[in-house]
Amino acid sequence: MTIAVGVLGAAGRMGSETCAAVEATEDLELVARVSGGDDLRVLVDSGCTVAVEFTTPASVYGNVTYCIDKGIHVVVGATGLTTEQLAELDERARNAERGVFVAPNFALGAVLMMRFAAQAARYLDRAEIVERHHEGKLDAPSGTAARTAALMNEERGRPWDQTGRPEPSSEVRGGDVGGVRIHSLRLQGSVAHQEVILGGAGETLTIRHDSLDRSSFMPGVLMAIRRVSELRGVTVGLENLLDL
Amino acid sequence: MTIAVGVLGAAGRMGSETCAAVEATEDLELVARVSGGDDLRVLVDSGCTVAVEFTTPASVYGNVTYCIDKGIHVVVGATGLTTEQLAELDERARNAERGVFVAPNFALGAVLMMRFAAQAARYLDRAEIVERHHEGKLDAPSGTAARTAALMNEERGRPWDQTGRPEPSSEVRGGDVGGVRIHSLRLQGSVAHQEVILGGAGETLTIRHDSLDRSSFMPGVLMAIRRVSELRGVTVGLENLLDL
Amino acid sequence: MTIAVGVLGAAGRMGSETCAAVEATEDLELVARVSGGDDLRVLVDSGCTVAVEFTTPASVYGNVTYCIDKGIHVVVGATGLTTEQLAELDERARNAERGVFVAPNFALGAVLMMRFAAQAARYLDRAEIVERHHEGKLDAPSGTAARTAALMNEERGRPWDQTGRPEPSSEVRGGDVGGVRIHSLRLQGSVAHQEVILGGAGETLTIRHDSLDRSSFMPGVLMAIRRVSELRGVTVGLENLLDL
Amino acid sequence: MTIAVGVLGAAGRMGSETCAAVEATEDLELVARVSGGDDLRVLVDSGCTVAVEFTTPASVYGNVTYCIDKGIHVVVGATGLTTEQLAELDERARNAERGVFVAPNFALGAVLMMRFAAQAARYLDRAEIVERHHEGKLDAPSGTAARTAALMNEERGRPWDQTGRPEPSSEVRGGDVGGVRIHSLRLQGSVAHQEVILGGAGETLTIRHDSLDRSSFMPGVLMAIRRVSELRGVTVGLENLLDL
Repeated sequence: MTIAVGVLGAAGRMGSETCAAVEATEDLELVARVSGGDDLRVLVDSGCTVAVEFTTPASVYGNVTYCIDKGIHVVVGATGLTTEQLAELDERARNAERGVFVAPNFALGAVLMMRFAAQAARYLDRAEIVERHHEGKLDAPSGTAARTAALMNEERGRPWDQTGRPEPSSEVRGGDVGGVRIHSLRLQGSVAHQEVILGGAGETLTIRHDSLDRSSFMPGVLMAIRRVSELRGVTVGLENLLDL
Repeated sequence: MTIAVGVLGAAGRMGSETCAAVEATEDLELVARVSGGDDLRVLVDSGCTVAVEFTTPASVYGNVTYCIDKGIHVVVGATGLTTEQLAELDERARNAERGVFVAPNFALGAVLMMRFAAQAARYLDRAEIVERHHEGKLDAPSGTAARTAALMNEERGRPWDQTGRPEPSSEVRGGDVGGVRIHSLRLQGSVAHQEVILGGAGETLTIRHDSLDRSSFMPGVLMAIRRVSELRGVTVGLENLLDL
Repeated sequence: MTIAVGVLGAAGRMGSETCAAVEATEDLELVARVSGGDDLRVLVDSGCTVAVEFTTPASVYGNVTYCIDKGIHVVVGATGLTTEQLAELDERARNAERGVFVAPNFALGAVLMMRFAAQAARYLDRAEIVERHHEGKLDAPSGTAARTAALMNEERGRPWDQTGRPEPSSEVRGGDVGGVRIHSLRLQGSVAHQEVILGGAGETLTIRHDSLDRSSFMPGVLMAIRRVSELRGVTVGLENLLDL
Repeated sequence: MTIAVGVLGAAGRMGSETCAAVEATEDLELVARVSGGDDLRVLVDSGCTVAVEFTTPASVYGNVTYCIDKGIHVVVGATGLTTEQLAELDERARNAERGVFVAPNFALGAVLMMRFAAQAARYLDRAEIVERHHEGKLDAPSGTAARTAALMNEERGRPWDQTGRPEPSSEVRGGDVGGVRIHSLRLQGSVAHQEVILGGAGETLTIRHDSLDRSSFMPGVLMAIRRVSELRGVTVGLENLLDL
């Protein structure tokens, strides 16, 4: 049986890539493309059972609320939901027996990197992170690097307040998250690359992720579409869909 | 309370390194060093509760049997135990309520690499392995590379007969284990290095281990000494002592 | 003063990228775009002084001959010129006091990698090459890898017949060029990557090139356009335009 | 004909390694081992023609002066010679028609890395350096990294005052040398590793050096011993003995 999928933000970069990926996938059917200004009722009219949300911080909360109320599961790739909104959506979705899946990063490789780095941090005491992105990326360290370091601290039993971002160092780009130093390179000819290097006695373990383009997000988006109807309430993070 | 440790093969490279590591560790006490020709009774007389076996293929089976019969748990680093011997030792140790821990590789980083590579193989379809060792290493591919590839196949539901080693390719060193290609480099200035590169749509995930010297084995040996008394029968592989 | 540039094969991938790059460059002016079927006389009529040839093996020789005869310098990116044709074009261009520049690879980074690998090969005895490309690349080892190994052999005083390609190994992709082993990986999520690892006593030197897309060729194409009018006869290889 | 070599500081780490390397080399003969307190006249009495200086900053200047005055060429690995002393020794050695060769780094691979990075810096505009050393190394960035960045600036026509060391950044280790950012990692399981990553349009070129132990210095020391008698005055840097 195929899953009837609707895409919100269908004209955007991630949205249009998602439409193409859904159309190219046998067990999924694209029943609605919603762009800014379109009436959301097309989701209901088309018999959509799973919606994918790739709109903007301003509209994501309202859209997810609408879908839950109409009995539609939602995969959220848009950013901008606050902690309070996530809590409110969680309760609403549980009551409606619907699943809302939110992921800051849909690249399977990036999620595996973060997970493995966190697990290894329990056995290898010291670690540093080197992340490299294209020159146009203004913030440093990257969100993925900061999150990786926070997860490593958590596994070591030293919870790190993930809402705070490390202060960027002035002269050399980077930051320090609970003892995990992050070094940020910004170089032409780069896309998105991260290396976590963990050191033990006489050995190092390196976990590296190289991302070439947006196509790396699609396998994670498709996985979420297939699995969101089994969830109840809000689930955050692709690692929760993996069986690691 | 300290653990009373005896080392068999104490004059060898791994054995002497283990003696030094035990002596430098607070919760462990080195009570016996046994070398070729020494009487094993020193283990009993010294009150040894955990023996570490780093002797030779010819003597390892007899030594482990002796220890079990005397109520001593054993950590085995020596190679040479056959599948039949492991089965026999397993029964003997269960009956005596003793633990025998056998590890082909005590480097934590290497064990983590193998584990992560196997887990990632479930989500990223294609992978190749590049291993690099010093010029003196005659066999190719390395045992660690072959075992990594076998574990990756297992996780993908394609069990690979681990007793067989891949046939080395004639012109270019390497081999193929169930579709995972292994490339073997032999170069001066190298010790022991392995990279597992997994490819997905628009991304690659690389897990790399670099080993500098024998000191990388000691944290794993010490972990095994501390944990073996909780085991019953034979356990193979450091990954079974890790909480991953 | 600007250089008047004409592009042959202007509708192809490299040709159209070249047109865009020329148009975006202050000291160059795109005066003619020639596609299959177009009359070459547009080159003369437009006052073109440098032509860029990105057509096909079937037409490249005739096009270059035409340009030389009309007094136009040529930058050739198309493949397919034979050794005999290059010799013939060399004489023809010398007589006409024109320059013909031919490059198998316009990526500056790749050319630097090859050059450095060759230089280092004189001082570090052993080396192996690991090249990784997307799954769609059928040939192995890659042309760049084979050429790198050939240049390394040349610098060591062991000229290698560059016309022959190494026989691909059956089980493990790769080849051996005069003692330099090449390991070929074909993996999803890859574009074009090569590592030359040279080993000495207690050290390794690694020279690595990562190419993301065709944009990496444009700086080399522009450099060739600016310099070809200083040349006489045929020059092969971007390294000859670099001051190393 | 063999070269008669004397080693000053023969009991030190580098000195004793040099003695062993000279003894293991056919065309060299170890005729004198000089340690602290020994009379330098043994150099003259033993017929030494090349001295290798691996003593301390306090004694190196006096020792080199003595050797020049006795007609002995000198290879200097000890640190501590000031710019003024180098100038004075240069004149003295020229007058005596003797060669003094001084190297801050004898590892061939490291010298090649610095040279290639500097050459590539002319063609690829942006670069960053990542250096990784063992936890015990207190200074950051490393001397090799700072020197690499300085050489890259020089090749770009922006001479960098090499006497000044970049101020280490407080939070994240590293520094900035004329626009080349250096990121310094200090991790267990590391020896001495450096990566220079240069970025161009759509491509990166990476030059990496990994050093395992002091044996990596010996090929450079032996090369200097064989070549110093051809020099006149003071020559600084192994790159000047290489034909690049």
